[in-house]
Amino acid sequence: MSKVVIKVTGKLFAPGNEDLIRELASIILSYAAEGNRLAVVTGGGVTARSYIEMGKKLGLNNAILDLLGIESARLNAIIFTSLLGSYGYLPIPRSIDEFLRAWATDKVVVLGGLQPGQSTNAVAAAIADIIGADLLINATDVDGVYNKDPKTYPDARLLKAVTVDELEKILIKQESKPGKYELLDKVALNIIRRSKIRTVFINAFKVDHLRRVLRGEKNVGSWVTFG
Amino acid sequence: MSKVVIKVTGKLFAPGNEDLIRELASIILSYAAEGNRLAVVTGGGVTARSYIEMGKKLGLNNAILDLLGIESARLNAIIFTSLLGSYGYLPIPRSIDEFLRAWATDKVVVLGGLQPGQSTNAVAAAIADIIGADLLINATDVDGVYNKDPKTYPDARLLKAVTVDELEKILIKQESKPGKYELLDKVALNIIRRSKIRTVFINAFKVDHLRRVLRGEKNVGSWVTFG
Amino acid sequence: MSKVVIKVTGKLFAPGNEDLIRELASIILSYAAEGNRLAVVTGGGVTARSYIEMGKKLGLNNAILDLLGIESARLNAIIFTSLLGSYGYLPIPRSIDEFLRAWATDKVVVLGGLQPGQSTNAVAAAIADIIGADLLINATDVDGVYNKDPKTYPDARLLKAVTVDELEKILIKQESKPGKYELLDKVALNIIRRSKIRTVFINAFKVDHLRRVLRGEKNVGSWVTFG
Amino acid sequence: MSKVVIKVTGKLFAPGNEDLIRELASIILSYAAEGNRLAVVTGGGVTARSYIEMGKKLGLNNAILDLLGIESARLNAIIFTSLLGSYGYLPIPRSIDEFLRAWATDKVVVLGGLQPGQSTNAVAAAIADIIGADLLINATDVDGVYNKDPKTYPDARLLKAVTVDELEKILIKQESKPGKYELLDKVALNIIRRSKIRTVFINAFKVDHLRRVLRGEKNVGSWVTFG
Amino acid sequence: MSKVVIKVTGKLFAPGNEDLIRELASIILSYAAEGNRLAVVTGGGVTARSYIEMGKKLGLNNAILDLLGIESARLNAIIFTSLLGSYGYLPIPRSIDEFLRAWATDKVVVLGGLQPGQSTNAVAAAIADIIGADLLINATDVDGVYNKDPKTYPDARLLKAVTVDELEKILIKQESKPGKYELLDKVALNIIRRSKIRTVFINAFKVDHLRRVLRGEKNVGSWVTFG
Amino acid sequence: MSKVVIKVTGKLFAPGNEDLIRELASIILSYAAEGNRLAVVTGGGVTARSYIEMGKKLGLNNAILDLLGIESARLNAIIFTSLLGSYGYLPIPRSIDEFLRAWATDKVVVLGGLQPGQSTNAVAAAIADIIGADLLINATDVDGVYNKDPKTYPDARLLKAVTVDELEKILIKQESKPGKYELLDKVALNIIRRSKIRTVFINAFKVDHLRRVLRGEKNVGSWVTFG
Repeated sequence: MSKVVIKVTGKLFAPGNEDLIRELASIILSYAAEGNRLAVVTGGGVTARSYIEMGKKLGLNNAILDLLGIESARLNAIIFTSLLGSYGYLPIPRSIDEFLRAWATDKVVVLGGLQPGQSTNAVAAAIADIIGADLLINATDVDGVYNKDPKTYPDARLLKAVTVDELEKILIKQESKPGKYELLDKVALNIIRRSKIRTVFINAFKVDHLRRVLRGEKNVGSWVTFG
Repeated sequence: MSKVVIKVTGKLFAPGNEDLIRELASIILSYAAEGNRLAVVTGGGVTARSYIEMGKKLGLNNAILDLLGIESARLNAIIFTSLLGSYGYLPIPRSIDEFLRAWATDKVVVLGGLQPGQSTNAVAAAIADIIGADLLINATDVDGVYNKDPKTYPDARLLKAVTVDELEKILIKQESKPGKYELLDKVALNIIRRSKIRTVFINAFKVDHLRRVLRGEKNVGSWVTFG
Repeated sequence: MSKVVIKVTGKLFAPGNEDLIRELASIILSYAAEGNRLAVVTGGGVTARSYIEMGKKLGLNNAILDLLGIESARLNAIIFTSLLGSYGYLPIPRSIDEFLRAWATDKVVVLGGLQPGQSTNAVAAAIADIIGADLLINATDVDGVYNKDPKTYPDARLLKAVTVDELEKILIKQESKPGKYELLDKVALNIIRRSKIRTVFINAFKVDHLRRVLRGEKNVGSWVTFG
Repeated sequence: MSKVVIKVTGKLFAPGNEDLIRELASIILSYAAEGNRLAVVTGGGVTARSYIEMGKKLGLNNAILDLLGIESARLNAIIFTSLLGSYGYLPIPRSIDEFLRAWATDKVVVLGGLQPGQSTNAVAAAIADIIGADLLINATDVDGVYNKDPKTYPDARLLKAVTVDELEKILIKQESKPGKYELLDKVALNIIRRSKIRTVFINAFKVDHLRRVLRGEKNVGSWVTFG
Repeated sequence: MSKVVIKVTGKLFAPGNEDLIRELASIILSYAAEGNRLAVVTGGGVTARSYIEMGKKLGLNNAILDLLGIESARLNAIIFTSLLGSYGYLPIPRSIDEFLRAWATDKVVVLGGLQPGQSTNAVAAAIADIIGADLLINATDVDGVYNKDPKTYPDARLLKAVTVDELEKILIKQESKPGKYELLDKVALNIIRRSKIRTVFINAFKVDHLRRVLRGEKNVGSWVTFG
Repeated sequence: MSKVVIKVTGKLFAPGNEDLIRELASIILSYAAEGNRLAVVTGGGVTARSYIEMGKKLGLNNAILDLLGIESARLNAIIFTSLLGSYGYLPIPRSIDEFLRAWATDKVVVLGGLQPGQSTNAVAAAIADIIGADLLINATDVDGVYNKDPKTYPDARLLKAVTVDELEKILIKQESKPGKYELLDKVALNIIRRSKIRTVFINAFKVDHLRRVLRGEKNVGSWVTFG
């Protein structure tokens, strides 16, 4: 029995991606059916962005904009948990206490964000920490961690392995750049580092990546190492 | 001191309508500041429609589609309550118990839906009933109740007054028509009828309508009468 | 594994019916023990009626009268769930979110009503819808659906099968009659229709009916068909 | 501003007592309107007794029988809080945490029981303790504390003042008697003693008693003294 | 399958006792792994005492001092449940409703207190009552029930068996003594008596006692009998 | 009317500091009584440290250690809120939703931590952000922000004003040092920066500092400036 937390980018939950979503859900369903335990954190995606945009025009403060992002992520979480049939937990947990209650039922627990000022990456790390996860999978829209932003630099190189310290440096560089390639935030990194959580970055849009990682394959994505 | 429930069509919460939204919120804020009590129910609008569409493609059942609509309406509710400053209640209530707890704080309580199989119109009527509202305002995207669907028939006539029985007949006719002009559902109508809730239908997009109705004007919108 | 929702008339929960109640509970217990999943919705019965009566004399509004009915139904639900031993869930869920949390534990979940302005029939239908029930059993105090009110007309004929549309016509006729023979309300009917929920009406007081229906027999009660 | 907790016997909530109930509620409403703070604990009365009877016949355990009593008391609490209009809090609190949340709104908080194995008298004392009440009023169906059971002995003498120690002796005598004249239980007594809570026993059925006690009169009911 | 409730003295949760705590947890874990169901109630111990002391100096009322004791007991409960791995439930239940929700997940549920004015012994008894426990184990810092306080009188004799009535007499004697040897309070005793809950008192610091009692041995601790 | 969030170091809540605690509470009480709104976040202090120590010896994971810290901080929060009389809110909020519900009652809301992996400083910043606070006061055990750790270097200089960027550099230096002088973490800093929250660092043990800051004085503590 393995315990796995999967962060799925919100960008997946857009019209046209229904087949991808269904496939990812079915991989997770199979893995749960084999007796493993999973928690899934969905990002806010395009809905989050559009509501945050509207909120900004209305002059709402940053914490409220975050709440809009969190609620959007929960919409994506409802979609995803519903695809897991009797394995999927509802309602979507809204606090760490609610997450723990849900987790105790042995279902797959899917959630969006939890708190303003905290990314869904940080939520995934916090949850991996509290349940003692064997693996944290961060499924974004690129193949893993690059030495530079792959969306800007065509010659960016995928790092098969990356130490936490290198990862931190890459994160710091990103922050200072406008065209942000969001991997992880500082909070998530700190949790991963302090608890040495096994972490891999894969591409959510290449569903085979998830299947392979869950099967135990190592030659896919970027793996974090703790020098 | 008056107690008023306002149902605001979800269609309002679309990019480009920021000024309208802000103005509606400011009218409600002033009315609350004068010592009146208000509850606002927001519809799901375009976000609801788009998520329900995605849900259908994914084969989710109707109750889950309703949940997607409800969560979308809650996003709109967050936007709206945040515009009310210290008068607006957060978090958005998720059940009738939570609504009552919120109502007891004397804030303006804004909510989306509550339960699958129940429209936001029914929520507004149920809430008007439980708090003993003096007035239920249904702010849609047309000027009130018409003898036929105003979006299909250019010669549709606005009814300044309509009995509950007439309203029911209009509702039944609508249901059987494909291009549905959604006024109210049967549940909402039953609650309004049994408790004789003073009800008026106005146009949410003509913000002056709301201002006038709150000032006590009668010559705007369509008023329900209880023969 | 089947998923079944059973609406049990509140009339059952009256002094003198203890043996009946116990027998019904034991049938449900056995069915659960075979690996099936069940939710049970109990009506308010005589306690509801007596409190609503008192509430009316005190001039309480309709929504509060509904709350009294809901709390009474919950008393019956406590009785019923307690008879299911370790299969029965407690506490009684008070919202759709709480129902879902309870359902995730794989227990039999027994509940009364959820919201003012909504019958326990509507609750049963909403729950059948959200869990994707294979069957909704409506156990009343008559043998099923009749072409006219069997309590008024001795020649009323039991309908072995009834289309949703016929059922609706029967419901509409009932509403306009004073001696109301309460089968189902409009909300419940709409949910059943839109999600084509397999539904059967049986007599709660003839416990063998429930046993036979759960065994898969078709020649008992009235079955709803979706022409 | 005074803080007062009133325990109202469940026996009051029976058909035919509507006028009494309304009058008591109106006294409490006026007292609240003058700026005082009140919590009211209602007993379970005849509904509790009838459900507990049914539960016993069904072989339910004592804790479940207590739950039936608690839910019945909550039905009475709904009735009572609804008579207080905008001063009354809903929903009925179900735990000490929920009571505190309700209390923070400055409404009158009405509740039934909280926990199996604990009388509504103990709930009233616990609440008086936590809010630092100035007065705990125990409104039963007799005029106060007697030297023997007034329902059995016509010559029983009403004690205008009673020390906690005397009260304890009277309680112990009662417990050993079958025709129990329920004043208070040991838990409630302990809380009253340790926190020296000012306590008076009056007759709920003589509504003027409540009015007089709230006005500050001392020559009504039995007052507990802390030697 | 047995259902067991274990009250563990808060004194155990002190620096230096880590090995004892771990061993007790591992005994409980094994027992749960064999298919038995357990609830554990932890006392407040030294943290409770120190906070209550501080609270007294600050002039806080008794109910708040109780809350400090309850929260301290919950700290111990977090420690204990965390040692049970995937068998332990989190978050710590804060009301009887939350306990029941936790219990329904089939995990071992560990809790501290629930309510001011109520000892953790009373909580353990109430919980044993509601789940219909086969055994209530009260693990204190002495070997069981003595005819006099073993900490004061070296010649105190351990009672292998004690009737509820004898137990009550011992409790009453204790209360009047300053150097209190806390066995049980009156509320707990009443619940044990009314529901004839099988109860044994053992020494928490002799971990073998717990192991032996769970194995069904009778010649350890003091057993309560119901004459 | 001002809205102020105060983070109070957990170190204050130690035996012997009762007078200091009481004085701080009384300053806050007066400020609230003048019509201002306050939220207070208490740290975990010595209790947190001792439980975390015990937890480490027991091999508990980091997230559980965080939970122990959070619960300890809540003990301090109970103490503090209880000193505020009818201005203090109870129960202590356990999630951002619960905080918002509490905040809506217009009481002073005192809380400990909210989530593993998040410092109480981050909680204070998140709350200041969501309520749109006019001022965030960080009351630690030193007089403000120093150019180096004042506990190690006697020549450390107090900075009357510090830009966010300087603050960040000081924080980064601290992290890499073993004798950590904990000012703020990265999450808190990010929230303060993005929302430009007016922030001042003062000494909790010099109660006059708090009084002066609340009166609007600028020449006490270290103020954060946003270049």
